[in-house]
Amino acid sequence: MTKISTITKPIETPADYMQSLRDMKTEIWAFGEKITNIPDHPLFIPHVNAVAKTYEVKSEVKSHLTGKTINRFNHIHQSVDDLVQKVKFLRTINQLTACCIQRCAGQDALNATYVVTYEIDKKYGTNYHERFKKFMTYLQDYNLVTIGAMTDVKGDRSKKANEQSDPDLFLHVVEERKDGIVVRGAKAHLTGVSGAHEVIVFPTENMRENAKDYALVFACPVNTPGITYVFGRQTNDTRKLEKGDIDKGNAQFACVGGECVAVFDDVFIPWEDVFMYKEYDFAGMFVEAFASAHRQNYGACKGGIADVLLGACYGIVKANGLTGAGHIRDKIADMINMTETLYAGSLACSYEGHKTASGAYVADTVLANITKHNTSKFVYEINRLSHDLCGGLLATLPSEIDFRHPEIGPKLQKFLVGAPGVSAEDKMRLLRLVDNISGGTACVEAMHGAGPPQSQRIMMLRDAKLEGKLKLAEKLAGIKEKK
Amino acid sequence: MTKISTITKPIETPADYMQSLRDMKTEIWAFGEKITNIPDHPLFIPHVNAVAKTYEVKSEVKSHLTGKTINRFNHIHQSVDDLVQKVKFLRTINQLTACCIQRCAGQDALNATYVVTYEIDKKYGTNYHERFKKFMTYLQDYNLVTIGAMTDVKGDRSKKANEQSDPDLFLHVVEERKDGIVVRGAKAHLTGVSGAHEVIVFPTENMRENAKDYALVFACPVNTPGITYVFGRQTNDTRKLEKGDIDKGNAQFACVGGECVAVFDDVFIPWEDVFMYKEYDFAGMFVEAFASAHRQNYGACKGGIADVLLGACYGIVKANGLTGAGHIRDKIADMINMTETLYAGSLACSYEGHKTASGAYVADTVLANITKHNTSKFVYEINRLSHDLCGGLLATLPSEIDFRHPEIGPKLQKFLVGAPGVSAEDKMRLLRLVDNISGGTACVEAMHGAGPPQSQRIMMLRDAKLEGKLKLAEKLAGIKEKK
Amino acid sequence: MTKISTITKPIETPADYMQSLRDMKTEIWAFGEKITNIPDHPLFIPHVNAVAKTYEVKSEVKSHLTGKTINRFNHIHQSVDDLVQKVKFLRTINQLTACCIQRCAGQDALNATYVVTYEIDKKYGTNYHERFKKFMTYLQDYNLVTIGAMTDVKGDRSKKANEQSDPDLFLHVVEERKDGIVVRGAKAHLTGVSGAHEVIVFPTENMRENAKDYALVFACPVNTPGITYVFGRQTNDTRKLEKGDIDKGNAQFACVGGECVAVFDDVFIPWEDVFMYKEYDFAGMFVEAFASAHRQNYGACKGGIADVLLGACYGIVKANGLTGAGHIRDKIADMINMTETLYAGSLACSYEGHKTASGAYVADTVLANITKHNTSKFVYEINRLSHDLCGGLLATLPSEIDFRHPEIGPKLQKFLVGAPGVSAEDKMRLLRLVDNISGGTACVEAMHGAGPPQSQRIMMLRDAKLEGKLKLAEKLAGIKEKK
Amino acid sequence: MTKISTITKPIETPADYMQSLRDMKTEIWAFGEKITNIPDHPLFIPHVNAVAKTYEVKSEVKSHLTGKTINRFNHIHQSVDDLVQKVKFLRTINQLTACCIQRCAGQDALNATYVVTYEIDKKYGTNYHERFKKFMTYLQDYNLVTIGAMTDVKGDRSKKANEQSDPDLFLHVVEERKDGIVVRGAKAHLTGVSGAHEVIVFPTENMRENAKDYALVFACPVNTPGITYVFGRQTNDTRKLEKGDIDKGNAQFACVGGECVAVFDDVFIPWEDVFMYKEYDFAGMFVEAFASAHRQNYGACKGGIADVLLGACYGIVKANGLTGAGHIRDKIADMINMTETLYAGSLACSYEGHKTASGAYVADTVLANITKHNTSKFVYEINRLSHDLCGGLLATLPSEIDFRHPEIGPKLQKFLVGAPGVSAEDKMRLLRLVDNISGGTACVEAMHGAGPPQSQRIMMLRDAKLEGKLKLAEKLAGIKEKK
Repeated sequence: MTKISTITKPIETPADYMQSLRDMKTEIWAFGEKITNIPDHPLFIPHVNAVAKTYEVKSEVKSHLTGKTINRFNHIHQSVDDLVQKVKFLRTINQLTACCIQRCAGQDALNATYVVTYEIDKKYGTNYHERFKKFMTYLQDYNLVTIGAMTDVKGDRSKKANEQSDPDLFLHVVEERKDGIVVRGAKAHLTGVSGAHEVIVFPTENMRENAKDYALVFACPVNTPGITYVFGRQTNDTRKLEKGDIDKGNAQFACVGGECVAVFDDVFIPWEDVFMYKEYDFAGMFVEAFASAHRQNYGACKGGIADVLLGACYGIVKANGLTGAGHIRDKIADMINMTETLYAGSLACSYEGHKTASGAYVADTVLANITKHNTSKFVYEINRLSHDLCGGLLATLPSEIDFRHPEIGPKLQKFLVGAPGVSAEDKMRLLRLVDNISGGTACVEAMHGAGPPQSQRIMMLRDAKLEGKLKLAEKLAGIKEKK
Repeated sequence: MTKISTITKPIETPADYMQSLRDMKTEIWAFGEKITNIPDHPLFIPHVNAVAKTYEVKSEVKSHLTGKTINRFNHIHQSVDDLVQKVKFLRTINQLTACCIQRCAGQDALNATYVVTYEIDKKYGTNYHERFKKFMTYLQDYNLVTIGAMTDVKGDRSKKANEQSDPDLFLHVVEERKDGIVVRGAKAHLTGVSGAHEVIVFPTENMRENAKDYALVFACPVNTPGITYVFGRQTNDTRKLEKGDIDKGNAQFACVGGECVAVFDDVFIPWEDVFMYKEYDFAGMFVEAFASAHRQNYGACKGGIADVLLGACYGIVKANGLTGAGHIRDKIADMINMTETLYAGSLACSYEGHKTASGAYVADTVLANITKHNTSKFVYEINRLSHDLCGGLLATLPSEIDFRHPEIGPKLQKFLVGAPGVSAEDKMRLLRLVDNISGGTACVEAMHGAGPPQSQRIMMLRDAKLEGKLKLAEKLAGIKEKK
Repeated sequence: MTKISTITKPIETPADYMQSLRDMKTEIWAFGEKITNIPDHPLFIPHVNAVAKTYEVKSEVKSHLTGKTINRFNHIHQSVDDLVQKVKFLRTINQLTACCIQRCAGQDALNATYVVTYEIDKKYGTNYHERFKKFMTYLQDYNLVTIGAMTDVKGDRSKKANEQSDPDLFLHVVEERKDGIVVRGAKAHLTGVSGAHEVIVFPTENMRENAKDYALVFACPVNTPGITYVFGRQTNDTRKLEKGDIDKGNAQFACVGGECVAVFDDVFIPWEDVFMYKEYDFAGMFVEAFASAHRQNYGACKGGIADVLLGACYGIVKANGLTGAGHIRDKIADMINMTETLYAGSLACSYEGHKTASGAYVADTVLANITKHNTSKFVYEINRLSHDLCGGLLATLPSEIDFRHPEIGPKLQKFLVGAPGVSAEDKMRLLRLVDNISGGTACVEAMHGAGPPQSQRIMMLRDAKLEGKLKLAEKLAGIKEKK
Repeated sequence: MTKISTITKPIETPADYMQSLRDMKTEIWAFGEKITNIPDHPLFIPHVNAVAKTYEVKSEVKSHLTGKTINRFNHIHQSVDDLVQKVKFLRTINQLTACCIQRCAGQDALNATYVVTYEIDKKYGTNYHERFKKFMTYLQDYNLVTIGAMTDVKGDRSKKANEQSDPDLFLHVVEERKDGIVVRGAKAHLTGVSGAHEVIVFPTENMRENAKDYALVFACPVNTPGITYVFGRQTNDTRKLEKGDIDKGNAQFACVGGECVAVFDDVFIPWEDVFMYKEYDFAGMFVEAFASAHRQNYGACKGGIADVLLGACYGIVKANGLTGAGHIRDKIADMINMTETLYAGSLACSYEGHKTASGAYVADTVLANITKHNTSKFVYEINRLSHDLCGGLLATLPSEIDFRHPEIGPKLQKFLVGAPGVSAEDKMRLLRLVDNISGGTACVEAMHGAGPPQSQRIMMLRDAKLEGKLKLAEKLAGIKEKK
């Protein structure tokens, strides 16, 4: 596979990691500027920090390819325990960052590629699986960060990839060369470009023969020429550019991953990095393999973030002197109930995982889908309760600058004080953290990350074995079996 | 322990089991009659049938006490896998009966007694644990059915056991003899008396020193002299006495367990059957050990029943010719989502179980509590959706007698027909099954079985480690650690 | 119109009313028997009692046809105040019966016929409106009870009336005679046959030209030859046949209306009682006029019933000594919130009603539809909370016979006692009332009465003026208006 | 009363209004700056615009004090129709701004003062009512904007005003002079300071004799010396300072009102502006009068905003080509259902209003409280559905600057296009509008504006006549009336 020329030895520490990003000089557009010093630019620092945390608080495992100790995010799951450790680690690391750590989509895309390339080879006698193992070995050896690029921009959603008025609205191959392919299109919602080394690009829907030019899976370094990244706006994004650390809420790690639109302008991909090429009948399988793997995570990562939110709200309740109030305790109990229900989903689908023909383990589909589906409701409900517990000050708190101002600062500090022993500053800090975690972008991520709710419902309906359940009912109802 | 004189050899088949009940001649009052032919009386047959099913579809395991193969319901969990197999079997068997199989409360009481007697002995040097092992061996060897008796009738619920105006409102010891104790009081909500051999009686709340006379755990045969059982009314209970099998909905197994009030009128219990006696400081521990074990089950057994309900609704949707309607599919997806979320809870708390000092394994407390708590909402919501899917006929369907009547039957059969190929009778059978599963008593059981929702909330609040979560939040909010 | 021969003078008192039913000798089948002494048969007495209550607690108004004082249920709304008084009275009377009083569907059908006949005449020059006014005058003068018959039995619901495999699955005309028409088919869910004098029959869906034989509106006495009524089973229906008054819950009035299937076996209807005949283009208008009028009521009647449920739960809370508990108070507040939100809908759609071309006033369509739609969720939620508040005894309470039995009665009375001053009997009575109100059939009625939720959603989507709202959004978003 | 010296003639047009604000030179702190050109500063312009809209789209009424035509926001309700017109106008004007128009709190405070001063005078023979009428006449004649200041900063919320460690944590009188009083303290959450002329200050809780120094109601011009205003941060607040109009979402009107903390640093208030002074026994009455009047509004103003949100989502659905999808239509129906249920509450509590002793009309308390209580849930739920309908782009859309950039703009315009005929820009505009309306601050306002949900629950519980409902239940349950 195409090695990133600037990466010459394994990344070991957060500092190594930061340096590797500096060396890559990936370009991301934001607010009309082309930014190249990503890991040192305030707009991206907190997002990169969240990834760097995974080089500090490590979950390591033995590679089944090389036998070496590797970072779990570059691992192909070899057991049910691998699946369980994945989600347990996600809850732990998200408790420490309260921010998306941006590595699970890549991890899930790698596992999906591993599973699907095995199947394509089996049917078509191709050699994708071995090719991909080489790529995996490279990632593991150098300890790189990979992200996923799935969602095409789509245009008219009532139409399939090949039916759009502009063929580029889904990413597709435009030229086949001896040494590789040339692709064009755009992918939305790329999480973690700012902190990534490699990106895996793959389809967003199942396909028929007439869409085979769209049936592509490939990898490339994120700084591959021809890709233009434009950073998406987030709620309160420019606070990252402000001075101070209170108003940011979570100054070190921001929130959510930081998403880009990526435009692929006739980008060349050498054959060694291509893992599906026109095998359209496997596009749907890839989507499902990725989706189930990704949906597996949501109860754990959102559970970890909800833990921090719960802690912050509990702090506010204490600051307000209200720990004893029945209705307050009831709301906290509801938050716990939903947080743990989310997590129970991630655990259950992991424990109930099974082995695929490729040898890789995958989570249980129905349970993974209900896990993600629950986040799309419960996260909103948890956030709502957090707003209830925090009171109106959550939305009317003056700025940190005012709070530190020599003339008005002392007034605010006097009047915004909490119960005896709780300073106004501590209250402000917790409120801003709640604001950060429960705000707009974070909600939408819980809704649409890993696919909108409807996509989970479709899988549930398909896999819930309704006919079998009907047979159970018919037997109990005394209905004779039909021949 | 006190052997039941009529049981002289191991029960092996459903038929053996039925005979064992006949031999015991347990008396239960219902509708002003003292009924003694329990397993042959139409009011009890379907409830007993559900228990008998566990002698036919068996989940067996090796006893850690004797090494023999035993029924899982008489097993002390020796591993996480035992916990998981328990809930998986519950879903399976409930899919076959759509009715409470009435054995888990006993199983959970046995496990709680095992755990707690070990702890009492450790503190007080008593000999309860060995005594209890003997009892367990007896149960396992003869393959008996045990139930639990927990909830005191309570009177004024703002007062503790020892504060009631009538001391008998909680069960207590009234006399200590050389050979045993005499107890008085009443327990409500005993599930499965009609099909049980033994009952374990235990406290319903934590206690202080002044309530030590109420701190009792003991076992006795259900037909012990001095106990009066009165059967509780259930929704549509007298349909069990009617002819025909359609209107009953689930003619073979009825629904819910069939609960009794048990009045203990100075009942003598020999010492060998007493497993806690005035060790009031262990009452709370027993309650929790039992409650967590019992709450572990609810996502699985209600999941199994919901599977049947889903199947029946799917059958109605087919009968109405509406499988393609978007809003119908959406409601089915919601039912699947909740059913699997319930089950995910049971799985997660089982997989995350741990070993106690006694060697027995127990489920994770917080996850077990959210599991039960979710049933108290989701089961109602699932039932509501089932009513939505079934249409108004669910509540206006004429009786089976009318349907079979020579004069009006043919009219009903002509007009209540479904989509081509679906007879009126098949529709009726499914509708009555839905009615049976989703009706009043079944709802209340999902609400209050294993304790009302508030009891789960209390445990969640206590065990959710709020202070630890606050520390996570403070760190991210930039609040200095307090010394 | 066809006068009922046995009714020769105005009905004035509940006693007159009862006698009028006796005289009519309407036949209803139930449990394989043809019952003719309806108002004196225990299966029907409580339902008839609920109707009789409207002859005792009267809401009277001046007829716009005759100027005489009449019962509001036979009134054509002449003002917004009429619409408001209608729903206010429904809440009041349902507070007194906690049972459907079975007269609103008839009232709403009468108003719909009044509005639609006016429109048909205007288009086709027919004479339905005058004909109908005569019928109304008769009803008003003799103070009769009218019910509605709308829902056809339908068979395959993916097909329209004229597409069914059996043409009789929707009611239709089979012969046109000089003096009238002959109709065949069956209507489901007729509420209140047992207490009615007249029935209005009308279509259940909009129709095209090819279904014109199904576009019929007519009235007939309920005891018209050729109609066979079969009574539907309800939750705990046979308790009405038991002795005692506790287990019935609401001994005087039962619950819900008591629904029949009505089979029309070539029934002759004279022209003077026909109010739509093949004017298929008005079938949809009739459905909507009736539906909006009927949906208007649900927040009021269910609000009245919820008041009783709230009262009963509050009584149980007092009996348990728990009025001070925060979580208990919270649940009561939720019940109040939903009850009053339901009622607010009924009030709002009434106050916002408007005059039609016929001069009759009708409720606001969108607000009437949200009102009914809310009941299909809130009533279930209110019932769920009632179960939470009542505790498990709601589902395990022994029978009244046991409670009165000389041997075991005293035991139950001792042990099921409440907080000081509350007898076991009072607790039982309230629990059985809650059971009656919150049980199966009552739930389904709240779901499907006045049409299933989806039917309300369709009307909301149609009438919510989405394009207008889009314009508001476009203006604020700075989008130029499209020419 | 104290006339604002710079206001010398009635305000007639939006331009007059803007000039009046310029003349007043009110100072508001924000981001460490003291800003005085409020109506011309980009941070405040959109908020002031929303108020100015009420001078353009007018709801006028005849003053009962002077007989002149006045703006409804300065009116004391003289009839039920006044109450209804109030909420209808709120929905209309909020449909045009999708932003709080910041005048209802003032209007409600004026009405509460009118009602309560009448009662104080009656009890104590004081002269507040006449004094207040003079103030009202001034407001009406000059057509001024008044806001309310209610919520004290509170500190330890488990303690009452007079129990705080710092007596200033609730606003109180610190000196009584011949010509007036001197007050100290701070009020949080003042909505609309930037666009107001006058402020009414009043208590936040009921009080006992020992807190009489806190029992104050007074008015003062917002630019009264000694008051320091600090502007609260809102979600995405600094976007108002950016160029362009897309990213702002609602460029003309922003969102929510814009709240300030107001510190009263020994502020002098002349007697003629004081309307309650130490009559502590009327503090609770004032709180309730204001609260009910204010809660009356929330279904209407949030309904108006939800209309715009619905319109924007419908636009996105069209842009995505998905108007026909069943699950999409279902979500829109849910949004309509909740929007209209909110509005139904505002209508119902208004129509059911009643006359007070003062002659002013007030809304029904219970219905007003459920209205506000519903917004605290439904607005979140509506927003959640809007996120579901909009897709992930809602949270990952690049900035307007990028979109207009010569190099990357054309790429974004090509790839973010919608269904044929829908430009990328139109999609962006609608998405940003949704983002603005459904985001953090807007949610919190729906939760805590007019008091947190718990405050509504307390009033519901108090006013729901539970004892009366219990009597209804007891009668139906056959329980003999207690003497």
